[in-house]
Amino acid sequence: MPHISLGNDAPGIVGPMLYRPETAKPLNALVDVLLRADNTLSRGERELIAAYVSRLNDCEFCGSIHGAMAAEQLPGGQEQVAQACVNPHVADVSPKMRALLAVAAQVREGGRAVTAEAIAAAHQAGASDLEIHDTVLIAAAFCMFNRYVDGLGTTALPNEEDYVPIAQMIIEAGYGGVITGSPS
Amino acid sequence: MPHISLGNDAPGIVGPMLYRPETAKPLNALVDVLLRADNTLSRGERELIAAYVSRLNDCEFCGSIHGAMAAEQLPGGQEQVAQACVNPHVADVSPKMRALLAVAAQVREGGRAVTAEAIAAAHQAGASDLEIHDTVLIAAAFCMFNRYVDGLGTTALPNEEDYVPIAQMIIEAGYGGVITGSPS
Repeated sequence: MPHISLGNDAPGIVGPMLYRPETAKPLNALVDVLLRADNTLSRGERELIAAYVSRLNDCEFCGSIHGAMAAEQLPGGQEQVAQACVNPHVADVSPKMRALLAVAAQVREGGRAVTAEAIAAAHQAGASDLEIHDTVLIAAAFCMFNRYVDGLGTTALPNEEDYVPIAQMIIEAGYGGVITGSPS
Repeated sequence: MPHISLGNDAPGIVGPMLYRPETAKPLNALVDVLLRADNTLSRGERELIAAYVSRLNDCEFCGSIHGAMAAEQLPGGQEQVAQACVNPHVADVSPKMRALLAVAAQVREGGRAVTAEAIAAAHQAGASDLEIHDTVLIAAAFCMFNRYVDGLGTTALPNEEDYVPIAQMIIEAGYGGVITGSPS
């Protein structure tokens, strides 16, 4: 049960977003830019960064929904996502994605944990400055979302497959659209 | 020197915000709602939560700018902020603020580190559900901002007093306003 009365039974981040629409609006705008807007990283790749960081932070709701989002949009589906979240070093992802996931893991640890070596490795694997910027901000943003969801004690869904229809709705309508009911 | 070429020499978060205005916009909208919009917590109190979390995360730029923002807007000024950031348990802040800072410290550690006891103590000290919600989200958001600023290797300003005029500009124009040049 959530730590505060949200006035609704919605799972995970949806509960506090319905409770406080004033903060939900910029939060959804941020994630729509980071994960959905045009980018040289595919939507599936960006969702994988979000899912990976959320799994490292042990956030069940975010790990599951962004894992489902990644699986729906990456060629290797659920198997590829599960592999990458457990061990990106041997997973079936591009060398560039492997290097970006390593940067994301350092960001999760702390801003000062990011090394020049990890950034150089990402550059060397072909990542652009903008791709590195967005990876750092996606990883940082999920350090916020994960704390928001679990810090309020919200509840996850009972089964992994429960996240698939929600992921399909978000792919259709955008993050803001799922909360407000109109496409974002 | 920042890890990537930002195309400007602006300090701290201003550099990446000028580099990527698409993400700066929702980030500033979020912080304007959380730290500046009408609230039963004063602007100074909310800035103190931001400064406290940033100091715990060892983020010099965010700790300094939000410390200056808090000092400008709290009756006890710089002395009160410095005390509260080092040891909120004995600082000259209200019992409610002390309880909310304890919740913020747990959020910083991780979403799952927040205890029902800390939430109950905040309720008992008179904090409303909305004040607890906003404290959790402010603390979570600064776990993002701190990682964004230091994860990209941005540079802080040389002296603490350099932050005071910037704080005064933000108090005047809002967070979005300082970046875009028009009040937010």
